Amino acid sequence: MRRKSVVDTLREIRLLSELDDGEIAVVEKNCRWKTYGASEQIIDQHSDSNDIFFVVSGRVRVVNYSLLGREITFDDLEPGGHFGELAAIDGLPRSASVMALEEARIASLPSDQFQRMILSHPKIALKLMKHLAYLVRTSTLRIMDLSTLGANNRVHADLLSLARKVTKDDMTAVIQPIPVHSDVASRVSTTRETVARVMSDLARKGIVERQKDALVVKDLERLEDMVEDVRGE
Amino acid sequence: MRRKSVVDTLREIRLLSELDDGEIAVVEKNCRWKTYGASEQIIDQHSDSNDIFFVVSGRVRVVNYSLLGREITFDDLEPGGHFGELAAIDGLPRSASVMALEEARIASLPSDQFQRMILSHPKIALKLMKHLAYLVRTSTLRIMDLSTLGANNRVHADLLSLARKVTKDDMTAVIQPIPVHSDVASRVSTTRETVARVMSDLARKGIVERQKDALVVKDLERLEDMVEDVRGE
Repeated sequence: MRRKSVVDTLREIRLLSELDDGEIAVVEKNCRWKTYGASEQIIDQHSDSNDIFFVVSGRVRVVNYSLLGREITFDDLEPGGHFGELAAIDGLPRSASVMALEEARIASLPSDQFQRMILSHPKIALKLMKHLAYLVRTSTLRIMDLSTLGANNRVHADLLSLARKVTKDDMTAVIQPIPVHSDVASRVSTTRETVARVMSDLARKGIVERQKDALVVKDLERLEDMVEDVRGE
Repeated sequence: MRRKSVVDTLREIRLLSELDDGEIAVVEKNCRWKTYGASEQIIDQHSDSNDIFFVVSGRVRVVNYSLLGREITFDDLEPGGHFGELAAIDGLPRSASVMALEEARIASLPSDQFQRMILSHPKIALKLMKHLAYLVRTSTLRIMDLSTLGANNRVHADLLSLARKVTKDDMTAVIQPIPVHSDVASRVSTTRETVARVMSDLARKGIVERQKDALVVKDLERLEDMVEDVRGE
């Protein structure tokens, strides 16, 4: 059987779904294709490239580092996603670094070809605008959380958003794999120690239960209340 | 002499600068025009409108409120600017409120007409994308500052960015009017008291001097060093 991973296609990239097969084939030919190993850097924040990148397989993390080396995570991307669009649009320096979380097959398209494509495909332009609007909205919420919530509350909110992605009955949620404390810390800008403390506290209260390979949110309603009480949603 | 303020024109709106006179006239006719008084709300975060708004005269502030009523400022806009584009693009609820800082003449265009305009004018689409990219970059920097800097350092960084807008010789900067402490506090997510304390401290060190109607940054280089030391720019 032919392995799917060896077929280099952009058919599953959401941003490009409006293109027909002929147009996709042209973009595929204009891309550079590269496989990155786990933890390998794909975009260095201080590089001067301005390609846009498409995640064909694997997962990648958009991340920034403070002067003291503290890691601040902005997004984790799955196959079908894209990154690097800011520099591809405005030509300014990269706003963040991107690294592979696991082996990842990545296609990159030079900025001038990308701009030509969006100028000639208004529907792709509109889709990209919606994506950028989503990034602004996500950032706005994070700025509000950082400005008005304590670290404990931000950990609760992060756990709630993980739970909402997998909940079926609105009562419990099974989060798999168990969230890595340092990942949570990097997403909500706190320390791993704080995350560990908040998780123990939630377990003691019976809101979560750590199982062998999953974190079960047993009282989703209570977790929701805790977040709503401080965010005012 | 005819007063400029009574002529309702969109000619100075930067986002629309690619339109010719005939096209501008059509957009002008499709807009609703309204004058808002100082402190009057233009967009309520909880309203379900999704127009885009153009600032014809006056100044407006994009702002959010925490559950406890704390104000977090996102942007102050001058004539020629626009706001409300997120909901106009994606149809989702408003991400922030907007209020007039002084009497402001505002034109608003319904979302469907706005989308039609950007779909038929790729150059406006690209301009809007660049603006959205700018908003993402600004938010990313703010998230980094909130995640890794203390409140004191964020006040220094805000003061530096005000100074950079007016500096001529790279040595001193005259900021007029004197920054209102509560405005600075709202921009960097801290208290007015912290801003007052940091400003006094800077004055005592001879870095700034408060004059009758201006705040003079006398040692811009030292202020730059203080910000670079923590941000790592």
